[in-house]
Amino acid sequence: MTISQALPAILAQIDADLDRSLERLFGLLRIPSISTDPAYKEECAKAARYVCDDLAGIGFDVSLRPTAGHPIVLGNASAGGGNGGGPRVLFYGHYDVQPVDPLDLWEAPPFAPRIVTRADGRKIIVARGACDDKGQIMTFVEACRAFKMVTGELPLSITMLIEGEEECGSNHLFGFVQEHADELKRDLALVCDTSMWDASTPMVTTSLRGLVYEEVRISCADRDLHSGLFGGPAQNPLRVLARILAGMHDEEGRVTIPGFYAGVHELPPDIRRDLAELNLTAEEFLGSVGLKVPAGEKDRMLIEQIATRPTAEINGMVGGYTGEGAKTVIPAQARAKVSFRLVGAQDPRRIRDAFRAFVRERLPADAKVEFESYSNAPAMELPLHSPVLARTRDALAAEWGRKAVAVGEGGSIPIVGDFKRVLGMDTVMVGFALDDDRVHAPNEKYDLTSFHKGTRSWARILAALAQ
Amino acid sequence: MTISQALPAILAQIDADLDRSLERLFGLLRIPSISTDPAYKEECAKAARYVCDDLAGIGFDVSLRPTAGHPIVLGNASAGGGNGGGPRVLFYGHYDVQPVDPLDLWEAPPFAPRIVTRADGRKIIVARGACDDKGQIMTFVEACRAFKMVTGELPLSITMLIEGEEECGSNHLFGFVQEHADELKRDLALVCDTSMWDASTPMVTTSLRGLVYEEVRISCADRDLHSGLFGGPAQNPLRVLARILAGMHDEEGRVTIPGFYAGVHELPPDIRRDLAELNLTAEEFLGSVGLKVPAGEKDRMLIEQIATRPTAEINGMVGGYTGEGAKTVIPAQARAKVSFRLVGAQDPRRIRDAFRAFVRERLPADAKVEFESYSNAPAMELPLHSPVLARTRDALAAEWGRKAVAVGEGGSIPIVGDFKRVLGMDTVMVGFALDDDRVHAPNEKYDLTSFHKGTRSWARILAALAQ
Repeated sequence: MTISQALPAILAQIDADLDRSLERLFGLLRIPSISTDPAYKEECAKAARYVCDDLAGIGFDVSLRPTAGHPIVLGNASAGGGNGGGPRVLFYGHYDVQPVDPLDLWEAPPFAPRIVTRADGRKIIVARGACDDKGQIMTFVEACRAFKMVTGELPLSITMLIEGEEECGSNHLFGFVQEHADELKRDLALVCDTSMWDASTPMVTTSLRGLVYEEVRISCADRDLHSGLFGGPAQNPLRVLARILAGMHDEEGRVTIPGFYAGVHELPPDIRRDLAELNLTAEEFLGSVGLKVPAGEKDRMLIEQIATRPTAEINGMVGGYTGEGAKTVIPAQARAKVSFRLVGAQDPRRIRDAFRAFVRERLPADAKVEFESYSNAPAMELPLHSPVLARTRDALAAEWGRKAVAVGEGGSIPIVGDFKRVLGMDTVMVGFALDDDRVHAPNEKYDLTSFHKGTRSWARILAALAQ
Repeated sequence: MTISQALPAILAQIDADLDRSLERLFGLLRIPSISTDPAYKEECAKAARYVCDDLAGIGFDVSLRPTAGHPIVLGNASAGGGNGGGPRVLFYGHYDVQPVDPLDLWEAPPFAPRIVTRADGRKIIVARGACDDKGQIMTFVEACRAFKMVTGELPLSITMLIEGEEECGSNHLFGFVQEHADELKRDLALVCDTSMWDASTPMVTTSLRGLVYEEVRISCADRDLHSGLFGGPAQNPLRVLARILAGMHDEEGRVTIPGFYAGVHELPPDIRRDLAELNLTAEEFLGSVGLKVPAGEKDRMLIEQIATRPTAEINGMVGGYTGEGAKTVIPAQARAKVSFRLVGAQDPRRIRDAFRAFVRERLPADAKVEFESYSNAPAMELPLHSPVLARTRDALAAEWGRKAVAVGEGGSIPIVGDFKRVLGMDTVMVGFALDDDRVHAPNEKYDLTSFHKGTRSWARILAALAQ
């Protein structure tokens, strides 16, 4: 029986096994594997073991690889005898999740996953990581499991690489990939950490923005000061930080850091026209989160702002008195977290250096600065005429009954740039997240349809690639 | 025996009683009466009762007056039969203290007062409130006690008004003063909440800056957003807040809020010359806290920046992710605490309204703002040729062996403006704080000399006023 002959039985198996698939996902969602907070180190290790054990159960030859941070799960499985013709693939995902603050905005505990039926009838899985990335990686794992159960083997040679530091910059994965390039170099990488175009239109993500993430700390006096005694003559680090960060954008929404746009390519006219035809409206994209007006570069379409243009953002800022009531203090220090989304050939290290120089040049007397780097990942792009892209789009169209959109996305998956640079592999990114999934925010969710049809989609993609 | 004949014995009594005076002060310092934090409500009541009981012991007719916030201590004592000639005085101070964060910077628990001998031989009292204002009010109380012990009576009719909300805006004191104007209206107000010119030069503070304190909250999306998905098109409240607050000052250090300088008078040339002759250097004033260059209006002397010019400061700011590591979030909200020090005839309500209009006019699409007001106090000034000022300066000169400086100060004591406006009283402000007292900051201290000679100074001032 060929793989395409077996596919209907595999899809039926996925349908029949849905409840048990959800149980397995919930087991993973119950582990609070928050990678950025050292307090959850043991929980991250627990999540890694959970994934390891699950893959072993499908026949992967698994190992847990320690790093100076959280462990990496590595698994290998060969294709069955008759199915060695397709590309050998590396599947990448992550078992770690974002912090849950502000906790008081969650309607239920973030690590007690549950199915909720919304007023519009949609069933959703609610938990931290339900979408990003535990729900998404399990769509691929469950597709593999269905193949194994129905045909006794996998349709392709598959290497699983599931890390635990994606949400804090994948710091140790970069070195791991370089050191274990032979184990990891395959014909193609697959990633499930992206979204659909909308709830009924599947999407292949063909480019990702890179990410430079910096913490900047400004210090002035050697202690907190009374603003009555010292207000006026004393340099205030909050004022210094606000002024410098406010200066990162001009009135047109462009980033003012010198050299920032080096390596940002203008879109070819035909691609730009394709994007315009998607006709993404502000109401559609921003309306769901309570916004109306695109706030990026004024001379760019909304879809460009998201997918093809670099950004600078303040992700966090704190200093002085922030409790209840009033305190007349001039703080000794103020801190901010600042990140840059990169596109095209922007060089992360040059961007980081240009930002640091920008801050240093604007420091007034009596202000000192320290920086810490959390990410330096370049952008990546999949060639638009790749044959695997065409097969993947056809498989998605078969599942969803609608042509699959191929477009760039605004998010960053730091390691995907290195798959190309270090391992020479292209990456096909398919995911089933939706814009209203509250990723990184309270009450994160994943549609049950995303999980179920996502699993079926991967079964179809694997079958298509194996032919 | 006249009061001036009794003075040497009164000063000797103060010297002999110093250890017991310190015990009484330490009892008050051990009570964590942090007024701005509702968690310490009971501790504030406890501090009020402590002060009440202590005043009753010196013969004051005391009462604890409840407010919607923390209680007010009121005490009355008449002068002895032969000493009714001087002014009836109202002494004002506060038993509440500032929060203690960041707690990890304290070298010992903030509410475990102790005497420390520094490397230079100076003995200091270390605790939250050691200076502001518990140590300072006890200098006055101990001077009264010495009079009572030596002469059996007080030299003047004294009304004590000790509140518990100075550090959070004296919100309920304003109404209390208006409602109880008859009880509180005396000939003169005395306040001990200010500093010396330097460790050997006493000072009478002849003006105080007013205080407008606002919390501003900017909201954009209805939830925290993933900066990969939404970065670019989504309005970021941290960026909005940074830009607006950075715009409050121009390159010359002037405040740009329209109408801000209305009511700010230029100094008469002779007063300006007097100030210049004090020759306050940046090294002297800023050096002790690790700063070098005055950061206020560029065309003003340092002493003007502190004493006679209004300011705008960011006292606190928070939004987004501020924990360890990286989180790529665009927050739903950002908050700041902003305060203005006022001088001359600046109108607090107009300043508040002008600030709010300034923020509202600069709000971009999709940003909403809320404000909360914590203080609206005008500045105050003592007439420079007041006879009580001359007597007070002479008494201070006798104690310290050096002419007492008379100058304006940068801090705000919100109620002092109302003593003039509502009760028609001038206020003489004498205090013994030093610039390195770490007021409002970790490891707050009060020099033992400030406490001891401060008590002696009040004895001399009371005697001088009674003549």
